[in-house]
Amino acid sequence: MSKVEALKWFRGELQILDQRLLPKQEKWISARSAEVVAKAIECLAIRGAPAIGIAAAYGVAVEALRPRASRESLLVAIERLRRTRPTGYNLFWALKRMKAVVEAAEGVQGTAILREAKSIHAEDAAACLAMAKAGLSLISDAENVLTYCNTGALATGGIGTALGVIREGYKSKKIRQVFACETRPVGQGARLTVWECVKERIPVTLICDNMVASLMNSGKVQRVFVGADRIARNGDTSNKIGTLGVATAALTFGIPFHVVAPTSTFDLSLSSGAEIQIEERDAIEVMRCTPGIQFLKRVKVWNPAFDITPAHMIHSIITERGVHMPPFQFTN
Amino acid sequence: MSKVEALKWFRGELQILDQRLLPKQEKWISARSAEVVAKAIECLAIRGAPAIGIAAAYGVAVEALRPRASRESLLVAIERLRRTRPTGYNLFWALKRMKAVVEAAEGVQGTAILREAKSIHAEDAAACLAMAKAGLSLISDAENVLTYCNTGALATGGIGTALGVIREGYKSKKIRQVFACETRPVGQGARLTVWECVKERIPVTLICDNMVASLMNSGKVQRVFVGADRIARNGDTSNKIGTLGVATAALTFGIPFHVVAPTSTFDLSLSSGAEIQIEERDAIEVMRCTPGIQFLKRVKVWNPAFDITPAHMIHSIITERGVHMPPFQFTN
Repeated sequence: MSKVEALKWFRGELQILDQRLLPKQEKWISARSAEVVAKAIECLAIRGAPAIGIAAAYGVAVEALRPRASRESLLVAIERLRRTRPTGYNLFWALKRMKAVVEAAEGVQGTAILREAKSIHAEDAAACLAMAKAGLSLISDAENVLTYCNTGALATGGIGTALGVIREGYKSKKIRQVFACETRPVGQGARLTVWECVKERIPVTLICDNMVASLMNSGKVQRVFVGADRIARNGDTSNKIGTLGVATAALTFGIPFHVVAPTSTFDLSLSSGAEIQIEERDAIEVMRCTPGIQFLKRVKVWNPAFDITPAHMIHSIITERGVHMPPFQFTN
Repeated sequence: MSKVEALKWFRGELQILDQRLLPKQEKWISARSAEVVAKAIECLAIRGAPAIGIAAAYGVAVEALRPRASRESLLVAIERLRRTRPTGYNLFWALKRMKAVVEAAEGVQGTAILREAKSIHAEDAAACLAMAKAGLSLISDAENVLTYCNTGALATGGIGTALGVIREGYKSKKIRQVFACETRPVGQGARLTVWECVKERIPVTLICDNMVASLMNSGKVQRVFVGADRIARNGDTSNKIGTLGVATAALTFGIPFHVVAPTSTFDLSLSSGAEIQIEERDAIEVMRCTPGIQFLKRVKVWNPAFDITPAHMIHSIITERGVHMPPFQFTN
């Protein structure tokens, strides 16, 4: 098992590792209501599309176990959780499953609801292992790889998506070392991927996001693995802001660019990435790193949290079902 | 004239605006020895290839005006200044001119030496104006432009290279607004370009470096202007780390990418960019933005300060002599 966990069910409550404090401090949030879970998702205490889905599922479960829970209060909780973040699809996928269980019974079946949340968690952990196996089938020699944002145990219910491949690849000597991009403005790469790699003793080199093209042009990396927040039927992939730049550089410098995501990330109602809603976040996230800038007048900030990588830039998409090659046409 | 100055000659000494403290604080360093100037260049109190060249020239002048100055002490000072930073070419170009003046006389001709430093400064200011005029000849409609790092008054002896074009373009309504990239890890875009734009009342939007591809794909920018630290005969251009990524995205999304630099940035001894030495700087620059990461063991950092954009990615190179189109073949 991974030494790192983003969340756990413990003594009737959901415990969430507050990722905002990493790598400085490991502090857990105790969640006994959907509202606490919703706030933890909104403020990025927990993030990563699969982990958000799992947290939201448990958010319904903690609500179901409250003394005065009703079918109505659970439906309200589901709506609340649905409004936390717009782009990652696993949230909506998990809440749809939870809603089906809530609506299947007349009263509140707390045990069945918790069981569904635990299933979603366990299925994601299994999917991570399957993705790692599929991803490693692509590699023959020991390689240096680049990853972006955080896609490890902190972002999922298991060992991770892209970082899961890298973790297993390092264990099996197919991957020598990983370059982690800082991932401004929230620093999921610098803060979380670096921390996970140190915990797992995977050799990691931190670079700024703007060093990717130079790194690729220097021949220091042979492959890119990234995660995804929502994938359309044609393979267009929304992922953390900056992924499109990595894909653009990878295409230019001839480096295979792989997306690793469970099928719960696929929004099959969308024909292309143009239909994906991109969350824009507060300017303070960008300005925090530049002391004094907040006192300058008339400075605007553009802070989209995600971008969309067109399918034609993607070498392959790896799910728990295997390696998918273009042209992508995802269906049930 | 620009409201912003990187350095000025005042009452027999060189005054250098300490850019490390911007935008929080405007504090000047008084330099009466070459050593103080050299340290200011090394620690990035002053940066930007043309400004470094001018500062170094004045560094020789302040040394020449010291009571016990000798031809030998000036040659030692020139060597000291030459060793401050390896990549930007204007430093070497300016010191070569200063050395010629020092060697032209038997004793120490303080007045002639100071006059040469002032000439280098004034010529750069004039070159900035000529580049702005040439750059704007490329634009017909009002456009949104992207720039990278800082290439304004803070980086030169005048209104700037790329940011000089933007400044004059905004005045003449050929440029509507500018997107400034943060420019990690030192933040010359977030700290310096944003500050200069605010001072000059140019509408500026700050983005993280990893948002460039998404911004270009969204159609929000029509053109890119960047500076340069050293340009080879074939047009290969070294500039602040991250420039290659911007150029790669610009090529992919069909956005013209312009380099703006005075001829003092051209190293005509080099046939291509492969011969340019890239400065690597301390890991702390990258880690400073991630509290707690310095306590993690076994974390490596790669921190090149520059990258090289191949000539084939460059739409045109703008100097004080005009607009140069590919294929580039620069000679005296």
